[in-house]
Amino acid sequence: MKFSRKHPMKFGLPPGALVHVGERRSEHVHLTLIDFDRENLEIKKIDSLDAAVPFLKTPSVSWVNIDGLHDINVLETAGKLFGIHPLILEDTLNTHQRPKIEEFDNLLYCVLKMLDYDEEKEEIINEQVSMVLEENLLISFQERPGDVFEPIRERIKSSLGRIRRSGPDFLMYSLMDSVVDKYFNILEHLSDKMEKLEDSLLTDPQQTVVNEIYRLKRQLLEVRHAVWPLREAVTKLRHGSSILVKEETLTYLNDLYDHIIQVIDSVETYREMVAGMLDLYLSSVSNKMNEVMRILTVIATIFIPLTFIAGVYGMNFRYMPELDWKWAYPFIWLIMIGIGLVMAGWFKKKKWF
Amino acid sequence: MKFSRKHPMKFGLPPGALVHVGERRSEHVHLTLIDFDRENLEIKKIDSLDAAVPFLKTPSVSWVNIDGLHDINVLETAGKLFGIHPLILEDTLNTHQRPKIEEFDNLLYCVLKMLDYDEEKEEIINEQVSMVLEENLLISFQERPGDVFEPIRERIKSSLGRIRRSGPDFLMYSLMDSVVDKYFNILEHLSDKMEKLEDSLLTDPQQTVVNEIYRLKRQLLEVRHAVWPLREAVTKLRHGSSILVKEETLTYLNDLYDHIIQVIDSVETYREMVAGMLDLYLSSVSNKMNEVMRILTVIATIFIPLTFIAGVYGMNFRYMPELDWKWAYPFIWLIMIGIGLVMAGWFKKKKWF
Amino acid sequence: MKFSRKHPMKFGLPPGALVHVGERRSEHVHLTLIDFDRENLEIKKIDSLDAAVPFLKTPSVSWVNIDGLHDINVLETAGKLFGIHPLILEDTLNTHQRPKIEEFDNLLYCVLKMLDYDEEKEEIINEQVSMVLEENLLISFQERPGDVFEPIRERIKSSLGRIRRSGPDFLMYSLMDSVVDKYFNILEHLSDKMEKLEDSLLTDPQQTVVNEIYRLKRQLLEVRHAVWPLREAVTKLRHGSSILVKEETLTYLNDLYDHIIQVIDSVETYREMVAGMLDLYLSSVSNKMNEVMRILTVIATIFIPLTFIAGVYGMNFRYMPELDWKWAYPFIWLIMIGIGLVMAGWFKKKKWF
Amino acid sequence: MKFSRKHPMKFGLPPGALVHVGERRSEHVHLTLIDFDRENLEIKKIDSLDAAVPFLKTPSVSWVNIDGLHDINVLETAGKLFGIHPLILEDTLNTHQRPKIEEFDNLLYCVLKMLDYDEEKEEIINEQVSMVLEENLLISFQERPGDVFEPIRERIKSSLGRIRRSGPDFLMYSLMDSVVDKYFNILEHLSDKMEKLEDSLLTDPQQTVVNEIYRLKRQLLEVRHAVWPLREAVTKLRHGSSILVKEETLTYLNDLYDHIIQVIDSVETYREMVAGMLDLYLSSVSNKMNEVMRILTVIATIFIPLTFIAGVYGMNFRYMPELDWKWAYPFIWLIMIGIGLVMAGWFKKKKWF
Amino acid sequence: MKFSRKHPMKFGLPPGALVHVGERRSEHVHLTLIDFDRENLEIKKIDSLDAAVPFLKTPSVSWVNIDGLHDINVLETAGKLFGIHPLILEDTLNTHQRPKIEEFDNLLYCVLKMLDYDEEKEEIINEQVSMVLEENLLISFQERPGDVFEPIRERIKSSLGRIRRSGPDFLMYSLMDSVVDKYFNILEHLSDKMEKLEDSLLTDPQQTVVNEIYRLKRQLLEVRHAVWPLREAVTKLRHGSSILVKEETLTYLNDLYDHIIQVIDSVETYREMVAGMLDLYLSSVSNKMNEVMRILTVIATIFIPLTFIAGVYGMNFRYMPELDWKWAYPFIWLIMIGIGLVMAGWFKKKKWF
Repeated sequence: MKFSRKHPMKFGLPPGALVHVGERRSEHVHLTLIDFDRENLEIKKIDSLDAAVPFLKTPSVSWVNIDGLHDINVLETAGKLFGIHPLILEDTLNTHQRPKIEEFDNLLYCVLKMLDYDEEKEEIINEQVSMVLEENLLISFQERPGDVFEPIRERIKSSLGRIRRSGPDFLMYSLMDSVVDKYFNILEHLSDKMEKLEDSLLTDPQQTVVNEIYRLKRQLLEVRHAVWPLREAVTKLRHGSSILVKEETLTYLNDLYDHIIQVIDSVETYREMVAGMLDLYLSSVSNKMNEVMRILTVIATIFIPLTFIAGVYGMNFRYMPELDWKWAYPFIWLIMIGIGLVMAGWFKKKKWF
Repeated sequence: MKFSRKHPMKFGLPPGALVHVGERRSEHVHLTLIDFDRENLEIKKIDSLDAAVPFLKTPSVSWVNIDGLHDINVLETAGKLFGIHPLILEDTLNTHQRPKIEEFDNLLYCVLKMLDYDEEKEEIINEQVSMVLEENLLISFQERPGDVFEPIRERIKSSLGRIRRSGPDFLMYSLMDSVVDKYFNILEHLSDKMEKLEDSLLTDPQQTVVNEIYRLKRQLLEVRHAVWPLREAVTKLRHGSSILVKEETLTYLNDLYDHIIQVIDSVETYREMVAGMLDLYLSSVSNKMNEVMRILTVIATIFIPLTFIAGVYGMNFRYMPELDWKWAYPFIWLIMIGIGLVMAGWFKKKKWF
Repeated sequence: MKFSRKHPMKFGLPPGALVHVGERRSEHVHLTLIDFDRENLEIKKIDSLDAAVPFLKTPSVSWVNIDGLHDINVLETAGKLFGIHPLILEDTLNTHQRPKIEEFDNLLYCVLKMLDYDEEKEEIINEQVSMVLEENLLISFQERPGDVFEPIRERIKSSLGRIRRSGPDFLMYSLMDSVVDKYFNILEHLSDKMEKLEDSLLTDPQQTVVNEIYRLKRQLLEVRHAVWPLREAVTKLRHGSSILVKEETLTYLNDLYDHIIQVIDSVETYREMVAGMLDLYLSSVSNKMNEVMRILTVIATIFIPLTFIAGVYGMNFRYMPELDWKWAYPFIWLIMIGIGLVMAGWFKKKKWF
Repeated sequence: MKFSRKHPMKFGLPPGALVHVGERRSEHVHLTLIDFDRENLEIKKIDSLDAAVPFLKTPSVSWVNIDGLHDINVLETAGKLFGIHPLILEDTLNTHQRPKIEEFDNLLYCVLKMLDYDEEKEEIINEQVSMVLEENLLISFQERPGDVFEPIRERIKSSLGRIRRSGPDFLMYSLMDSVVDKYFNILEHLSDKMEKLEDSLLTDPQQTVVNEIYRLKRQLLEVRHAVWPLREAVTKLRHGSSILVKEETLTYLNDLYDHIIQVIDSVETYREMVAGMLDLYLSSVSNKMNEVMRILTVIATIFIPLTFIAGVYGMNFRYMPELDWKWAYPFIWLIMIGIGLVMAGWFKKKKWF
Repeated sequence: MKFSRKHPMKFGLPPGALVHVGERRSEHVHLTLIDFDRENLEIKKIDSLDAAVPFLKTPSVSWVNIDGLHDINVLETAGKLFGIHPLILEDTLNTHQRPKIEEFDNLLYCVLKMLDYDEEKEEIINEQVSMVLEENLLISFQERPGDVFEPIRERIKSSLGRIRRSGPDFLMYSLMDSVVDKYFNILEHLSDKMEKLEDSLLTDPQQTVVNEIYRLKRQLLEVRHAVWPLREAVTKLRHGSSILVKEETLTYLNDLYDHIIQVIDSVETYREMVAGMLDLYLSSVSNKMNEVMRILTVIATIFIPLTFIAGVYGMNFRYMPELDWKWAYPFIWLIMIGIGLVMAGWFKKKKWF
């Protein structure tokens, strides 16, 4: 587990200067263009953004997807071709951005955290997705190939649902919805882990449990980080006056908002539960310690006086009358057993064992 | 106890696609129709929703209750017959919805959590109830047969109270009120458990108490989850401009709101008390540990030096003048008893026993 | 100490149905009528509410006080005679109501918690007082005889202050003020207990202290429960547009509001202090444990090696040259004393004793 | 350290009744009058408030300072002479008031907590100051002689700053500013104590540290209590519509507000730091305990088995072949040293010492 | 580490009196003037502020930077020359100011905390920067030479970015942006430290870790202190009506606001993580203690009874029949080994080792 949130190391550069901040996660920049309307559909990989220009002028919806952010030239071209302000491009390149939606005169800019769960390493994978919505055009920027949008591409191809009948705003909503749906998926993974943790807590609590709890906390923090700012952002959008978002889409945005609230609710509930687990663990540890101490005390308290008695009659004084008594040895055994039983009875009464 | 809140596993489907999310809790879908006005009353089980159509056109109040959500056809038919938006149906099918009330042009949609308490397993049972209010019509969706609405059916049958004289909005309020009243009932069960826990805490605290506290916390979290969002929802409704809710009903909604606030208040107070109990338990555990350690220390501290003395005179050196002294043995006893008494006196002074 | 907040057990009844919820605290219902204006004063016990009717029509202020809620007939009569909505009567009967003030067209309804402190049992006694303010009329409902209003009755009798010169709104304010003044009195009791607790914490902390702290917490919670909702309620009233409250009374309501805020402030401060006390106790316990362990360790660590040495020369091997040396015994004493002193010195240096 | 916040013991008196609530802190009531304008200045002790009357009619600023609240007559006279409402006088007499500013038609009433730090006892001294601002007149009420206003009197005498050129509103601001400035001074004392505490925590943590932390917490709570309500009060004033406060004074009130926020900020930061100190102390205690236990365990674990071996060969069985072997004694020494070394090595590897 | 926040020691002075509050951090006051427009640039050190006057009248942007606050004369001159209110100068001199932005008729005043990280001492260095924005003029006050503004000076010199084409408002934004960018840099340092701490927590937790955690907490508190008030301040500015801030600059202020929110977010997340680390440490300590106790208990519990048995047969009674039995010695060995194995097995079953 690493502290993934490295901050921009571009100190001193003028605002709007394009520097890629974050790990370089992909070798090549991949560009895909999907252009569709109710009847027609065109999907193709393109080499440069210029190849997308002819599609922009048609009234059909164009979705340009850019995988890989390290090639500054591509972004600069995008800036020029699609009229994107340098500050937006700067935000896109800085992959430590906070999720947000910003409305400008001619476009709408949206930053999201696309989370995925690596089941092997039990880690959350964090990728930043930025989207620029313009009239008839949606541009999406991802850090590397591979995303959660495949089902949407399928729906476009198979004309399923209303996506082919709607504009780029509905497409953007669909992408956002996929991202948020994935959060549910991740929460389910975390919930499974919590269930396992809880079981092992109630049966056999180990120190590793605390590390697991700590990891869970951090993962919940990561999901929370991704989803909290989204709430505010979508609120703005759904009350929003943006002419780029059609009224039919608003109902769907309300639905998306509900989902976001549900994710937040679950995250907060899980956080409380995880805190409760830590309490449970700590109390169980101190309880175990108590048990350990009790056993030690019972054994020591019973045998230490007896050992003392044995020690006394192991002394080599010449004048020890008891040593010569005939029944001294069995008598001393009786005394020692008696002391032992009284002690044991006392501990029994105290419910120590 | 299970993490009951499994999230929708419908990743990738278009919004509005109808998939039942949650356990399948009932074999058959049961449909009941109750149609009444001041004079007439008709109650019958129906096989398909089409049988309800003739009743819709009369000015009498129709209440269609659907038990069981797994039959998508029934919901699709409901959608067509009663003009319900696919997104609403999707929410109805997803039984992990957050309680909410949504106003649309022609209808009002409401999601509730109907809680019940299984006294044997000491568990809270969670069932989602959705209601659609239209003019002269109320449709309620439940996950399975069996609900808390029986008294309301009785009141309709026996014409008790103003329910027969009022419209479907008052019927909806009555159903909501039953659900909230049940929360009080559950809180009473939890309060009883807390009282027992408190007693056992003050008399004989055991580790199981912590598990019980942890369970209580989770159950309170569950009630809180059910009731918090309701507060906001009902607020919206009672200030609401919905023409479907008549003004006479508003007074009753205010009363419902008061009840909700009262539930929330109690839940928060109980949560604080449960937290206080944990503190009490932990401090009692560390206190017990203290006592255990004290006994061990008293016994060990008194006898370890004595055993040492006995050990010294058990040594086999040839030249140990004390061994041959006549009064050495009783003298050593005096010394040992003296040391023991001094030590015991010291511990007494320290109030260790 | 009991969980006093039992919830209504009237599940399934129609809203507005009159059932007394709570303990039955009084055998008979006592009715008292006080009718006064600047010149005249009449105080009498009445048998039924009908006896109050003639006084209602006069412009003088009538205060009808009802002690005991279990007789539903009396409340129904009150409802009819004074035009009180069934939902209000239901709230009055349910003695687990949250404090609130509600404005209606012709009346103002107010629920308060009248707290008292039983000095013997060191318990807070909770009684619900409801008041209905109408033109020239104030009706107060109490659970049982005995209240904090005696000084007000005295003031009415002796014409002290402006109470005889003012309307029923000032009378209602006076009653509320008495109730809130009593909160201060209870806080003083709790503050005394805290002072004692603090003293015993700093001198000789015992486990009972934690139980006391826990009780204090619950009592503070109870006061908080009584006073928090009042704040909101009085705010509404003092900004209020109610024509039943005259403008001269508003200044007094502001004063009342100040007192409420002061109570809330004190409660929150006390809660923080109590939390601090728990920390103090816990740290003192773990400190004591530390001391206990230190003593055990010092004694054990010094004597265990010495006992071992004594044990070695208590072995019965035939060929142990040391045993026959002339100065072996005093020499071994020197060694043992030496080891003991070194150990003691080491612990001294570590500041363990 | 005492719980200083005793609540009013005036239960049952009519509102506005004048009773002095609090300790009687001064024998005599001292009255001082300062009357000044740009050119003239008159300072004199007066015996009764009537002596101030002639100065009220002049346009010059009159500042009447009253030290000592126990003489009800003086307050009643003030009420009559300066037109002060009985409720205000009641608040003035109740020295457990919450800081507040209230605007009335003809006057402005302000309650402050004047804190001072007793360096010897290391205690905060709390005194309530009330001020009534009217046209050309400021009346200040203090519990006893001695205050933080001396520098302001100096400035008036020496005509320093703009105080002689401004009205009574600026005078009131100046007094408030002195009070708030004193808070900074107190925070500095507390900060010094924290620094010392921190040092002793990092070098040699003792139980007394916890008591100190507890005291600090309470003192911070006391400052917080004095300054939090002031924030709200001054906010109201600086947005205020009061005609008694001139516009030139508003800039100064903004400055005062900034200072108050700064005090609050520091108090909150200090509170967090103190909480952090407690954590530090507790973890250091449990760490020390760990160390103690480790030493005990190392010593006991090494010597207990050795003592056992010595015990075995101290047994008196007739047939113990080892006892007669020639090299048995040195051999047993080798074994014992071997066991000791292995154990010590094991603990070394575990980094226990 | 020191409590750096010493409060102003200027108690009793009139408001607006100029006294330097804080450490004297520089010997001389250094004045620099940078005057630029799109074509021209002039940078020069000046001896007195009067030398800046000629530049003020030109429409070009003048940036006067003052390093060192202890020379009151310079500030008084600045006040007179640039029309700055005495209260502003007072705030500038008090280096314990809270970050804020204040709008006046003719100028805009801004206080910032410029943080730096001393990598050697691992400390945050805190310096206050005040800025006064007027038409065509920006004056910046620093406590001592050396700042984070070098890159901006470079950009001015090299005409990089839009800084030469914009007014003093953009210059102020640029300075603020540099300060906030530095916060990211500091957070990165703290994040590195946290990563190291986390590693050592999971491998080998030591008491020093707690001190480190405590230091981290305080440093996060310091960053938080610097950045929280800034949020509010910039919010006011970006909604602001100030005519001194041009509309083109607003986009950049929004960007700055985003950065501030990001810093706050990170600080809060780090604080939660640090709290989680403390939990982790404490649970690991109590776990270790548990292990220590377990070892002691296992060893003691096994050997104490055995030592007792050996002690018994070391007694010197004359009549102890076992002593003369032939196989008693090997038999007692068998018994002792048996007891040892049973005990060990029991502990094994309990999973104690």
